Amino acid sequence: MKNSFGSQIQCSLFGESHGQAIGIVIDGLAPGIALDMDFIQKQMGKRKAQGRISTARQEADDVQIVSGYFNGYTTGTPLCVLLVNHDTKSKDYGKLKDLMRPGHADYTAQLKYLGFQDYRGGGHFSGRLTAPIVAAGAICLQILQSKGIAIGSHILQLKEIVDLPFAEERTILAEQIKTVNEKYFPVLEDVQGQKMIACIESAQAAGDSVGGMIESAVLGLPGGIGEPFFDSVESILSHLLFSVPAVKGVEFGLGFGFANLFGSQANDSFYFDPEGKVQTATNHNGGLNGGITNGMSLKVRTCIKPTPSIYQKQQTVNLHTQANEELQIQGRHDPAIIHRARVVIDSMLAIGLLDLLTVRFGTLWMREEK
Amino acid sequence: MKNSFGSQIQCSLFGESHGQAIGIVIDGLAPGIALDMDFIQKQMGKRKAQGRISTARQEADDVQIVSGYFNGYTTGTPLCVLLVNHDTKSKDYGKLKDLMRPGHADYTAQLKYLGFQDYRGGGHFSGRLTAPIVAAGAICLQILQSKGIAIGSHILQLKEIVDLPFAEERTILAEQIKTVNEKYFPVLEDVQGQKMIACIESAQAAGDSVGGMIESAVLGLPGGIGEPFFDSVESILSHLLFSVPAVKGVEFGLGFGFANLFGSQANDSFYFDPEGKVQTATNHNGGLNGGITNGMSLKVRTCIKPTPSIYQKQQTVNLHTQANEELQIQGRHDPAIIHRARVVIDSMLAIGLLDLLTVRFGTLWMREEK
Amino acid sequence: MKNSFGSQIQCSLFGESHGQAIGIVIDGLAPGIALDMDFIQKQMGKRKAQGRISTARQEADDVQIVSGYFNGYTTGTPLCVLLVNHDTKSKDYGKLKDLMRPGHADYTAQLKYLGFQDYRGGGHFSGRLTAPIVAAGAICLQILQSKGIAIGSHILQLKEIVDLPFAEERTILAEQIKTVNEKYFPVLEDVQGQKMIACIESAQAAGDSVGGMIESAVLGLPGGIGEPFFDSVESILSHLLFSVPAVKGVEFGLGFGFANLFGSQANDSFYFDPEGKVQTATNHNGGLNGGITNGMSLKVRTCIKPTPSIYQKQQTVNLHTQANEELQIQGRHDPAIIHRARVVIDSMLAIGLLDLLTVRFGTLWMREEK
Amino acid sequence: MKNSFGSQIQCSLFGESHGQAIGIVIDGLAPGIALDMDFIQKQMGKRKAQGRISTARQEADDVQIVSGYFNGYTTGTPLCVLLVNHDTKSKDYGKLKDLMRPGHADYTAQLKYLGFQDYRGGGHFSGRLTAPIVAAGAICLQILQSKGIAIGSHILQLKEIVDLPFAEERTILAEQIKTVNEKYFPVLEDVQGQKMIACIESAQAAGDSVGGMIESAVLGLPGGIGEPFFDSVESILSHLLFSVPAVKGVEFGLGFGFANLFGSQANDSFYFDPEGKVQTATNHNGGLNGGITNGMSLKVRTCIKPTPSIYQKQQTVNLHTQANEELQIQGRHDPAIIHRARVVIDSMLAIGLLDLLTVRFGTLWMREEK
Repeated sequence: MKNSFGSQIQCSLFGESHGQAIGIVIDGLAPGIALDMDFIQKQMGKRKAQGRISTARQEADDVQIVSGYFNGYTTGTPLCVLLVNHDTKSKDYGKLKDLMRPGHADYTAQLKYLGFQDYRGGGHFSGRLTAPIVAAGAICLQILQSKGIAIGSHILQLKEIVDLPFAEERTILAEQIKTVNEKYFPVLEDVQGQKMIACIESAQAAGDSVGGMIESAVLGLPGGIGEPFFDSVESILSHLLFSVPAVKGVEFGLGFGFANLFGSQANDSFYFDPEGKVQTATNHNGGLNGGITNGMSLKVRTCIKPTPSIYQKQQTVNLHTQANEELQIQGRHDPAIIHRARVVIDSMLAIGLLDLLTVRFGTLWMREEK
Repeated sequence: MKNSFGSQIQCSLFGESHGQAIGIVIDGLAPGIALDMDFIQKQMGKRKAQGRISTARQEADDVQIVSGYFNGYTTGTPLCVLLVNHDTKSKDYGKLKDLMRPGHADYTAQLKYLGFQDYRGGGHFSGRLTAPIVAAGAICLQILQSKGIAIGSHILQLKEIVDLPFAEERTILAEQIKTVNEKYFPVLEDVQGQKMIACIESAQAAGDSVGGMIESAVLGLPGGIGEPFFDSVESILSHLLFSVPAVKGVEFGLGFGFANLFGSQANDSFYFDPEGKVQTATNHNGGLNGGITNGMSLKVRTCIKPTPSIYQKQQTVNLHTQANEELQIQGRHDPAIIHRARVVIDSMLAIGLLDLLTVRFGTLWMREEK
Repeated sequence: MKNSFGSQIQCSLFGESHGQAIGIVIDGLAPGIALDMDFIQKQMGKRKAQGRISTARQEADDVQIVSGYFNGYTTGTPLCVLLVNHDTKSKDYGKLKDLMRPGHADYTAQLKYLGFQDYRGGGHFSGRLTAPIVAAGAICLQILQSKGIAIGSHILQLKEIVDLPFAEERTILAEQIKTVNEKYFPVLEDVQGQKMIACIESAQAAGDSVGGMIESAVLGLPGGIGEPFFDSVESILSHLLFSVPAVKGVEFGLGFGFANLFGSQANDSFYFDPEGKVQTATNHNGGLNGGITNGMSLKVRTCIKPTPSIYQKQQTVNLHTQANEELQIQGRHDPAIIHRARVVIDSMLAIGLLDLLTVRFGTLWMREEK
Repeated sequence: MKNSFGSQIQCSLFGESHGQAIGIVIDGLAPGIALDMDFIQKQMGKRKAQGRISTARQEADDVQIVSGYFNGYTTGTPLCVLLVNHDTKSKDYGKLKDLMRPGHADYTAQLKYLGFQDYRGGGHFSGRLTAPIVAAGAICLQILQSKGIAIGSHILQLKEIVDLPFAEERTILAEQIKTVNEKYFPVLEDVQGQKMIACIESAQAAGDSVGGMIESAVLGLPGGIGEPFFDSVESILSHLLFSVPAVKGVEFGLGFGFANLFGSQANDSFYFDPEGKVQTATNHNGGLNGGITNGMSLKVRTCIKPTPSIYQKQQTVNLHTQANEELQIQGRHDPAIIHRARVVIDSMLAIGLLDLLTVRFGTLWMREEK
């Protein structure tokens, strides 16, 4: 399916970083959803480059909805979001046509597209392609919120600096999600956030970059969501998360931590709570058993590799001269994208979960009263 | 797509652990492939329970191909593999209808299927469903091998015991893949394997279980394979890997290790080797840039959680009596499945990669001379 | 998707006429549907060869459900129907390996599968592959019936002999659908049916065969079903109908009759009936406007070409000798399949409509009380 | 998949008649195809309203390719075609919000989209949505042409007026396809075309409209294309053709004519021609046996119903007042669309066939030398 994904909520992505426009077509939305354009732009804002810890490229990212939206409501037909590219400095990339930037997709794009790819700014592989994802995700998030489902993410780790992990207790978690969703640099403990920012700035000063780990939580998901075998919740969400440039690891619940445990430590025992609702005493499985939601909070961690665009000299190949060469990247680049990637992760989770919910409950469920 | 996956090589899985039969339909194979039935059965053998470190349930797993196979060759029409269930002791599960086993899919299946699921032996959520996957995977592996592509996996970690990681150097890696593919308990260093087995036996003696981490490598993949945006190699492979019961984490290359690095440490610099072929000096990205293969060996690690079926007493809920209850699981269970899961991981990698290769090269490519 | 079809109700078909077994996997059914096995076998019976006007090949067609069905109810996991082949006389086909039967898929299968196809009895292209379709269709029909949706088909034309067309008036149409569903040779006017049977017998006596036209009606469909643009009801249903071997034409409402009309004659005007329900004065559009159901009865006609297996001498090519040759087909063949194809058409309509209904209303809708 | 279609060549359509823009995303094209923009605009021109026999609405239909196209070549990433809407007179439609036009999708859109649809100019159901289809089709046609595959269509019938049918002989057919592709009003016999135009003008004078039948032929298709069971060539092409608004019937080869024939008359006998190539003596099956191409010319006929927008008074319902009402349509409408629909049919055939060819031969095949 290449640039499309989804069963009932299907997204088709298009565009290149320095092309005329980028965009996404979202199909499968119910009619009659009043879109909160302020919320969409607020989400876009979280992805925008701001301050010293981001690239200097400034894109307005004015979300134009060119179809599927009429008189303030979704129509139910495919909704196309268009984002026109403005602040492109393509000449910065002229030299990069032949010089393959390490860690980037330049070389693999060359292999795949045989030299015909739009190499400017990373073309179709640019992180810029996540902007339409955030627009689509914002629409899905709004629908999920209307159903009492909240999604939030924060930077759990940036090099050796670690934030407080999300709580399991519902009231606290709800508050934490709210908190991080209001921040541009999403951490639970601001003092740790300050250290992280300092670390990014110091990397930047050295012409270097950093990555990190994002922890996400989803609260309020009904149990019984997800499809066996191939469309387990983990399968669908990891498929979407690994589509985000720079993501190199995804784990649910304890994730790789399970490798060190005995079964007796790993299992989450069940109990009836005072209201007669089934709960688990622990949530090592991150709200998922057998690929299906169990009603506990969904927990997922995503690793973002350091931005490959660094200003230090690097060894690489020149495909034109067919010689090894030294490369020094010019232009405008992010010393870290993890704080901007956060909202992309939230968006992907929202897109995937709305799809799975719609498979179970049908298109019209989206507009039913909760 | 639920129980189907794939674009050009599409697999449809069906069956329950204690039902009449389980199976898989594989569509999209080229005609004229002479199947190596010995290889298929050998792969099935790797998944079989053997010795003290596995369940006592013994299934012949005689692969019956009921369609798409004629006179020793694939026909090109859908190939259906059927595995009849024999050694079922369903009465062991009578009690489990109402008692939800912690860590299992019993409760989520109940939520999703409203009590109509076949609960015996985990039903559709049983690890038994991976047997048809291995059969399908063996066919895909055979085709990949005929193209010079080798896949292998080993147990990198089991609790604190760690095996030697796969080498990057091609000749050594090729040898290592060969080595682990010949072993039932797949490790590079047998002394570490012995420690792991001792650890499993000791867990078993305590009525407990263990999980671990599998490292996989693919050698010989051409560059330029994978599709942006949603069908990145990582997306497709993680989708398949997270479909395997008990998988809770997937990472490519350094994976979560990227969180601790500077970009200058993380980037893999390019160079022309003496034959004029582009190589990377390191392979932190696991053979993938921008979701597309770069010609280096593909590296992926998968975390398998400890088998949830343990013999120790556990707290859980009885959905019939609506009361909290103590559960002591009877029956036959694996104290570890990681050594059996290895071939399932290999199979999933083979299925996903053959699909992506076919998207690029077409159906008939499968039978072309290399 | 080749041998799979469907968005929410997905069917995967496999098997060859003289192979071990044929079957279908149906995914997406809700859990908890009590299957009416008598109804399924009754539907299978309609497809069976009976009497002089059919082939002498007799297959028990005992429907084995090997998965997704437990204690008399669907489980919600993939339901696999298996039909074992018994009455195969493969030696009748030995000669046909090289001699391409005119009108059959022998030659195109050779082109596509390069000689590796199972040529016995038409292999994967045999009309026998419609038996699993009827089993799957019977399950879908049962679900639709529980929602008040009725489907029926009859032979509208067989050479120059014409049956009474379906009425538009609901009560009469409901009765007509019931009537034809009870008959093995489905016509509204038995005297016309007798003439048709006589025509088939006379063709058979001459070593020849006949085709015909089937008219189908669906009563009780809610309005608003179908998806623009590519998944119009006409698109989905024609996709399925043209998958049935021998179908060469499909038309909705007046179909090709529209070519002769003015718009003023073709349009169906709307009015409120006494109960305040919107109706159309005529139903030239067959219950569909813009690819979406309008609440009127759905009408579709399908043309079935004459069975290509005739006993008269025919000119053809021998691919082995590379010479033109005369062919005289032996074996057991149908002088007409239109009466057996009827239930296949009904089944395809049921499969397609249940899929579109599930897209709109969700999986669980299937088991809600009407 | 709703507004997307295709396995290897996937199209996603969006937009409404009076919205900001309409467009299509085409995914799966090979990189390095030099697009012939003149040819694309020439094809767009065939769909444009011209002269008295079309609507007065004039749209520039300047094809903007906003992604997937760089320096005159396809990049291989999703290609998005955008068409901005200019000449919209939305006030003509204010009254139509509540008055359901007979034969249109107004009422079914209301049922499906619950009143939130963009009703202006038919919204998403407008024939205007076929403009992006023509742009996508032109790209596919160009690729097919580079492979020696030619597609052409003409008006075979318009009320009682009949054009010469396409010939079977290859040289003549090639010439005929060329001829009709050069004409705005596509007929083989101009004198018949004059009669048809006169008929349209006379219908227009009476405030009425006409439909008709289009015959299409594809020459040069290799044998062995198409997929069993569900992706037969007939299934894929009919799916696409029935997506075109106003199409109500599709038949291949003799189509419904088969109902009147004996098998001995219907079968196409095979023979080796002097060059040793297998041919059929007749081509009643339209180049398709068992859903797979046999190397003969592909023949398909499509029925277009009369334009439902007529100026005569019609009875209908007013959903606001809940009363029966008389409707007299204002605005600009086509008395016939069949001559404009021709290029849409060609485009759909090209899209479907390129997809099936790519499934067999892979993405890179598109750019190989013939």
